[in-house]
Order: sequence, then C-alpha cells, then structure tokens
Amino acid sequence: MPLLKSWIESANSPDTDFPLNNLPLGVFTVDDLPRCGVAIGDRILDATGLEEAGLLRLDAAPVLDIPFWNEVMELGPEAWAALRARLHDLLREGAPEQDKVAPFLHPMESAELHMPLAVAEFTDFYAGRHHATNVGTMFRGAENALPPNWLHIPIGYNGRASSVVVSGTDIRRPWGQLKGPDESAPRFAPSARFDLELELGAIVGQNSDGPVTVAEADDMIFGYVLLNDWSARDIQAWEYQPLGPFQAKATATSISPWLVMRAALEPFRCATPPREVPLLPHLEEPAPMLYDIALEVDLTPEGGSPTTIARTNYREMYYSSAQQLAHHTTSGCPMNVGDLLGSGTISGPTKDSRGSLLELSWGGKEPITVGNQTRSFLEDGDTITLRGAAHGDGYRIGFGPCTGKLLPAIPDPYAR
Amino acid sequence: MPLLKSWIESANSPDTDFPLNNLPLGVFTVDDLPRCGVAIGDRILDATGLEEAGLLRLDAAPVLDIPFWNEVMELGPEAWAALRARLHDLLREGAPEQDKVAPFLHPMESAELHMPLAVAEFTDFYAGRHHATNVGTMFRGAENALPPNWLHIPIGYNGRASSVVVSGTDIRRPWGQLKGPDESAPRFAPSARFDLELELGAIVGQNSDGPVTVAEADDMIFGYVLLNDWSARDIQAWEYQPLGPFQAKATATSISPWLVMRAALEPFRCATPPREVPLLPHLEEPAPMLYDIALEVDLTPEGGSPTTIARTNYREMYYSSAQQLAHHTTSGCPMNVGDLLGSGTISGPTKDSRGSLLELSWGGKEPITVGNQTRSFLEDGDTITLRGAAHGDGYRIGFGPCTGKLLPAIPDPYAR
Repeated sequence: MPLLKSWIESANSPDTDFPLNNLPLGVFTVDDLPRCGVAIGDRILDATGLEEAGLLRLDAAPVLDIPFWNEVMELGPEAWAALRARLHDLLREGAPEQDKVAPFLHPMESAELHMPLAVAEFTDFYAGRHHATNVGTMFRGAENALPPNWLHIPIGYNGRASSVVVSGTDIRRPWGQLKGPDESAPRFAPSARFDLELELGAIVGQNSDGPVTVAEADDMIFGYVLLNDWSARDIQAWEYQPLGPFQAKATATSISPWLVMRAALEPFRCATPPREVPLLPHLEEPAPMLYDIALEVDLTPEGGSPTTIARTNYREMYYSSAQQLAHHTTSGCPMNVGDLLGSGTISGPTKDSRGSLLELSWGGKEPITVGNQTRSFLEDGDTITLRGAAHGDGYRIGFGPCTGKLLPAIPDPYAR
Repeated sequence: MPLLKSWIESANSPDTDFPLNNLPLGVFTVDDLPRCGVAIGDRILDATGLEEAGLLRLDAAPVLDIPFWNEVMELGPEAWAALRARLHDLLREGAPEQDKVAPFLHPMESAELHMPLAVAEFTDFYAGRHHATNVGTMFRGAENALPPNWLHIPIGYNGRASSVVVSGTDIRRPWGQLKGPDESAPRFAPSARFDLELELGAIVGQNSDGPVTVAEADDMIFGYVLLNDWSARDIQAWEYQPLGPFQAKATATSISPWLVMRAALEPFRCATPPREVPLLPHLEEPAPMLYDIALEVDLTPEGGSPTTIARTNYREMYYSSAQQLAHHTTSGCPMNVGDLLGSGTISGPTKDSRGSLLELSWGGKEPITVGNQTRSFLEDGDTITLRGAAHGDGYRIGFGPCTGKLLPAIPDPYAR
C-alpha cells in the first residue's frame, strides 16, 4: 500500500509517525478537559469535538464523550472500520469538508497526552524466544534455558492494571524486599537492579466468555501500543518462586500515548518463526499474525544525550498476541474490552538487539556504554524512550515515543 | 460483646448467620432490578429503597443507586461507621421507625443474590503455612517444602478479576493444556484434577498509591467474604514454571454473596502464630489482625447428600490480609477500592482440616470418603459449599454459604 495523501501537509512527510494510513487513537488536553483525539501529521484531530459537531457519528448515542476509546471498541469491528473510513474521508487530499474539520485540529506539540484507554486487566507474556533463552541461560544455565512448557504454550502471568501509566509519567524507583545470593537474610531497600522491558501491548476490543480460536482472537484485537514493563530484577529474584513475579512488576508499566489500530498494521503482517516442535492444533496460526515493526530503545542519562541501546523487531516473537489471547481463553477465562496483553520482552538474536538491560549487560557482568558512562541497570535520572514503526513505501506507521524518567526512590516509607 | 437484639425475631436466633451484630452487605433481586441489601435474620433489608425513601443517607448524592457497594467504600471509614450506626438504629429492638422500615424487608429465601461489589483487581496469596507445607512436600519433598522466601513475605500472585463470580454460579470444568509426568508431549483436554481452595477474601475499601503500613492497610480493609479459588491442578502443574499459575486459576473464583464488614468481626480478632524467623519491621503486626472464624467445606455429589470434608479456622493463617495488603503496596503498586485479596488456602494442622482436595487426598494417593463414594478431585455434578462464622456469646457472624456446582466440560471447543 502506498502513502495515502492528506490535505494536512505534515501527514505526507516520510518522517512522520502519523500519516493518513495510520490514524492512531489517543486522549489529549489542550487547555480543557481530556478529549478523544486522532494523530495526523503534527496535529491532533479532536474526535470528541467532531462527534459533538455531528461530523463523526459511530452510534446513536455519543461514544466519545468519555475520554477513553473503550466505548468505540465495544461497538465492534464494523464500527472500527467505519471510524477509519470516515476519518479517511475527512482527512484525505481533496476532502470536501476541510473547512469544517480544520477548527478541530490542534498542534500536537502543545497537547498533553493521557491514557488512550481504561485498562481492564493486564496480562504480560514471556513469548520472545531470544529473551527467554537469554534470561534462562543466566538463571538456569544454557542446557535448561527454556522451561519444558515454553515451546508448547505462550507463558504468561497476570499483571497489575492499576500500575499502567501513559508515556511521560515519571517512574519512582521502588522499595522492596531483597536478598542477594550471599546475604543471610532479606532486607527492605530500594531496588538496585531496576530495568526496562521493550514490549508491544495488544488491546482486546471485544468480550469473550469461553475458548476462542487464534483466528477469532486476532479479530478481537483492536490495536497495539508500545509497552515498557519496568522490572525490579532484585525484587523479582527473591519473590518469584513459586508463584511468579508480583511486586517486581507492580511499580509501573508505561504505554505509548497512541494506540495503533490493527487495520493500520495489516500491510505489515508476517509469520512467526518456524516451530521447533509442532504446536497443538488450537494454538496454530491460520495466517501470519506478527507484524514487521522496527523497534528501538534509547537511554538518556540526566542532563545527557540519548544513546540507542537496542534495535530489534516485533517479528522476532515466537508467539503472536492472537496466540496469546487464544491461550488466555482456553480455561474459560472471561476476556473484556480494554484488556491489555504485553507481548513479552522483544529481543533479537544479536547482542545489540536485546530488549532489557538484564540481557544487554548480561546480569550486570558486562556493563554497556552509554555516552561517556556505563550502565548495568538504570540509574536515577535516566530516561528510557521506546520507539516503534512499521515501514511502508514512503511512509511509516508509528506509535509516537513511549518515555519514562526514573526518579530516585522516596525516603524509607517505614522510617519512624 | 453480647447479642444485639433486633425487632426482627429471626435475627435473634443463635442459629442465624445474620444477627444485628453482623449486618453484612449484598446485592439482591426479588422481582425487580438488582438493589443493595443488608442481611438481617431471614430477611434482606432493601438499602437502596431506604436511601430512596430518605431513611438512609450516607452522602449528599445517592450512593446505593448502582447495585454494588463500591460507592459506599469510596466514602471512607467514617461513612462505614455511620452506615452501621444507622442500620443499628433502624433495626434494634424498640427502634422507633419500625413501621417505616418494615416495607423494605424481603424474605431472603425468595431473593436472588448477585455480586456484592465490582471487583477491581484480584490478588491471591499463599499465606497458610499448613497449606504451603503440604503442597511443597508433595511437589518438592519435606526438606524443601517451604520456599526460602516464604517465612519473610506473603507470597502472592495476581489473579483474574473477570473470573470472580458470586456463590450459586455454576462452574464449568475447564479445558487446558496438560502433560502428565509420564507423557512425552502435552495434550489439550478437560482438567482431570479440578479442585477447590477454601479461602477468605479481603475487600480493599480505600485507594493508595504508595507504601502503607500494616496498621494503615488494616484500616483500608472494608470487609471479608468467603472465597473458593477453583484450581485445575493438572493445568497448573504444566504451566506454572517459571511465572506462576495462569489458566489453572482463571476459570472461576466464587465468593460468598454477603460481605461482612470488618467492624462486625472486631470482637473476634486474634494474633497470627508465632514467627519462626522475625519479619522485617514493615511487615510486623502492631496488633492482632487475624480473626477467629470457624470454616468448613461440604461436598455434595450429584443427587447425594452433603459430607463435610474439612473443618478449619482462619486463625491458622501465617499472614493476615493487612500484612498482605501492606506487602502489596511496597513497590508503589496502586491499590483501589474493590480490590479483592484472597487469603490463600486455609488448612489446619490435622488431616481433616485441609482446605483443598489436593491436600485431603494427598495428590490423589489417598482418596477421601464422601458418603458411599470416594474422591481424589472433583467429579462432574459435585457441589462445593463453604461456610464460615465467628462465634460470639449466643450469636454468630456468618457469611452465608458460598456454593458452586461443577458442570461437565463443554465439548471440545476446537473440534472442526
């Protein structure tokens, strides 16, 4: 598919994340209450305003009066397609209603961005093979790197929806209970091994209350966001046996402010890697369900300039979000509009394509160079920025940056 | 504290779960839309109706117009106390407003009961020492029964709020991916080791966005419910390494229809057992935070009569809900009104006080007798009923039964 041209010039630049082909959804304020918006070039289109003015109608009653996109998701796939078709009609080159639409465009640079959706529940997976192999090798040795179930099911755990925040939200270094391998007893201290995890998040846009197929699961996915699953490795190491990560992953998870609808990514579909062992039939993919999305991680020390510490691609995943969602439903687990599924850390096969500092610094044994400094884990004041884009012919489909700055831990919350 | 006498005679019986001392909260329908209600003897008091009639006023605007108790929780501890004081005034022996209140009383036997709250997120703990020791012994041997962290933190994992259902909801035997120890590859099949877990659930009634002390956590707890965390042991055994239980615990979790407010349980506070190793200071309890609540589990085969398969007590727990909630906040994890914290399976020290069939049948090696049948795990058609009550002087504080009937698995959802 070529670039779709818009009458908004900045949307036609090959350098924008937001051409007419994209039309990602967000929530913004300029100087008023939060409103639903659509990114187009360097502008945000006030979708709530369009609905109020009768220029965008998705249902008999308003669905954009609450500043989250959940109500649009609830309308279902036909409405999703109608939304994109209408936005295209309003924004395409030569669109007849330009004069009516123009007052609803705001400069993106002056807008504050908020959570694009109300997250119902958050599930995080462990479905990148390079990541699982790297972490497993560090913790259990190369022979036992992948757990026996890993090639048969997308391993996941339930995360904490209350901790999901939008890009730009500062992150506080957490306190937690820690015990180093050489320590005789645990202690309560700020995490000293605080890390990022580069992921993509899939947004569930339809409800289900029984097992669904991988194809049905794919149809239920409304879109994708960039996702940084901040992780306290030292808290995790002490707590995670036998029931999995808990407080190590509960401080915060950042998502990009722009939710890219699945339709915008269609031209970039690609298959999962060859299966090492066949999957059970219910987890087989009937069609390609990954996407070719180039990803990178920048680290910017306090007062410094950014260094790109990893470059990878979403197509490196072993399991797609559709496979994860299908697996999620096998037990009859009800899934709801607004559920967020983290892909798992997206690492590539090479050293510079690893999606976490745990892997990049090999557990702190091989610190990486960041400008004139080194890093094993995050230092106070570090800003992490995730970027991602699918690259088409003369355009790209991006998510906007997903950033978060790490602030120092609060003083001991239990000091008397 | 003695029995508080009510003008509703059935509330003065030593055999009711619902004397005036209790006043548990639920949601019910008689022949209309769901309404907030309070159990008193064999009646339900229509609290929504009282509010509409101006007989119960908790805030400037109505808070009982939505059939969940969450809005009352949001009002905070003073409103919680005011609610109980007003209900006491309306229902006590000699209350002047009996004639006005009487029309709002409905026979409990003719009411349908619904979820008493909207569950925000669900966390389940593993904080019963006898349970953890039993399970650990089965899986890892007696020497390694308790994981190294167990005596230092209340181990928990995030569950799935969407799967929490009210007592009386039928439970479907789940399908899942399974692999027995002697099988060379996993298969997709109905769970053959489906189990119950006897727990108490604590309801978080206030928000927090940073670490709270155990005392503060106790103040945040609005009340308690009985909780049955249905568990597919065979799905769990295959999936739970390394990130914990996922689909094994996602089919359903049943809670009692009546939410007992913390204030009703105050006379029954008791301390946790002696610590084997000292806790870090932030997890120490400043006062007794368990409760003396007698618990039992009945199993009723299809068409048969009930057998009590376990009798135990909530005071057997090693960690209280307040300790669990404090630990839950250490990382800065935001907690919200309506969060549900499962205590973990409540097993006592003796064989007949174990809160799961996994323990009662020792992994299926020692099937138990149920009437003229035996059980290792649940059979289709089995009904599980949890009961719990704190016993005062001539009265008891109960939760009403928490029941669920296991229906056969659906036909293969992926058959073509």
